[in-house]
Amino acid sequence: MQIAMIQDKIVPLDKLEPVYLDRGIFFGDGVYEVLRSYNGKIFALEEHLQRFANSLAGVGIAGVDIGQIHSRVLMAFDAAGFPNAKIYFHITRGSGPRDHVGEADLKPNFFLTVTELGDDTQIKTKGIAVSTHPDWRWKRCDIKSLNLLANVLAHRDAARKGCDEAILVDEQGFITEGSSSAFFAIFGRTLQTAPLTANILPSITRKFVIKAAENIELEIIEKSLTPQQANRSDELFIAVTTKDIVPVVKFDGRSIGDGTPGKYTKSLIQEFRKFTQ
Amino acid sequence: MQIAMIQDKIVPLDKLEPVYLDRGIFFGDGVYEVLRSYNGKIFALEEHLQRFANSLAGVGIAGVDIGQIHSRVLMAFDAAGFPNAKIYFHITRGSGPRDHVGEADLKPNFFLTVTELGDDTQIKTKGIAVSTHPDWRWKRCDIKSLNLLANVLAHRDAARKGCDEAILVDEQGFITEGSSSAFFAIFGRTLQTAPLTANILPSITRKFVIKAAENIELEIIEKSLTPQQANRSDELFIAVTTKDIVPVVKFDGRSIGDGTPGKYTKSLIQEFRKFTQ
Repeated sequence: MQIAMIQDKIVPLDKLEPVYLDRGIFFGDGVYEVLRSYNGKIFALEEHLQRFANSLAGVGIAGVDIGQIHSRVLMAFDAAGFPNAKIYFHITRGSGPRDHVGEADLKPNFFLTVTELGDDTQIKTKGIAVSTHPDWRWKRCDIKSLNLLANVLAHRDAARKGCDEAILVDEQGFITEGSSSAFFAIFGRTLQTAPLTANILPSITRKFVIKAAENIELEIIEKSLTPQQANRSDELFIAVTTKDIVPVVKFDGRSIGDGTPGKYTKSLIQEFRKFTQ
Repeated sequence: MQIAMIQDKIVPLDKLEPVYLDRGIFFGDGVYEVLRSYNGKIFALEEHLQRFANSLAGVGIAGVDIGQIHSRVLMAFDAAGFPNAKIYFHITRGSGPRDHVGEADLKPNFFLTVTELGDDTQIKTKGIAVSTHPDWRWKRCDIKSLNLLANVLAHRDAARKGCDEAILVDEQGFITEGSSSAFFAIFGRTLQTAPLTANILPSITRKFVIKAAENIELEIIEKSLTPQQANRSDELFIAVTTKDIVPVVKFDGRSIGDGTPGKYTKSLIQEFRKFTQ
């Protein structure tokens, strides 16, 4: 008889709930998005749904109705009732026997959570410390997939060093991005960040950061930088959906500027706030 | 209220079964093994458990008793009762709120299946066709992790081309391995396969293939080869736990040798059988 075992309990394989045979767990065969709301309003929903559609196409998961996802997000957000909510959702290729190719008639699995975001005043005021880690991720980081073990290992390494984020460095010695954030440096009045390639997630927050930088008349350069260059920058920050702009005041143990959030970073935080009101 | 949504059904987050919050699905934060039995006897169990322990150490999942895994594998194998069984198992870092670092007190999740292996006489007699695909995997393929989306996408590409396996080619133009197999070429009396690096899974079947090759007095070279070299080989084959040695008779649409399994490949299949009896 075909069997499964969950911890030390044996069950017939055909009695298992489909979630145990989700290709998400066997292969990370799925894609996801994270959204947030500011004071009761979901930010950049259309952009996130468009990126999600791109991720689905990138891994060839077909038959997903983005309009239906849109409705589900709104329904769940309303049901939860948090003004400042974090909305996570993923779709996997479906549940079935563990086989790389998978059956032709798989039905995608949708899963979503809505949780409440905490107050981020302190990290925005004090800034965070980051540390570097080799970028071990796969070669299609433009797809927001469930294959995040490299990100997890880098972030856990940062946490062990007392840091809040890991900044990933590729084999050529260039910074790609954070383990779950985009990464920016400021030199004088110039904002620098890596260009969008197959090794970089097209961050939606990044797009709004660039718009905010244009609004305060910073020059923008999309060019990869090294940890050595980051160390010599005037200001550093990361950008992530759930917290938008977070100042970085320490990089691999070394203080950036005077060790407090930089003036243009603070201006960008103010400017970003205009988008989210 | 914190909520989750499964397909279109809303449930309170704290009422979810832990499997829905498995870090295996959120991040692929786990490692796995696949074993097989031949006529009622599990092959190379100790080697697989040793590799599993190495994978756990590689991702920093602690507190797993390998002796207990050993017992569970035997118990499940006995309960299933298949002489020729495929045994799959994984351990993830545990279930909890989706957070890259994860709580300190996570309890690992164990999951295992035992299914029956079909007859592989035909593919061993006729051989298979393979096609190449860029190796998009992460940089720690020496760890047998649940991050397998690159493997899935490559294998699906091969299936679309009517092939049975994808052979992965790195950015330098060298073959690393198959999407779920080791890859071997024979030139004259020389067996060639890629050396074990961080980009190659230390395949247990590969180890026994090399032993079999020594037994029939083939010269063994551990050196990466290109698709062009593979195309000009006398014989090709893949090695995978569930089917041991499978002849490759077509490579990217081109016949290898006379388009049937090669003589040394057939000798190796015979020789391998001595290990499994």
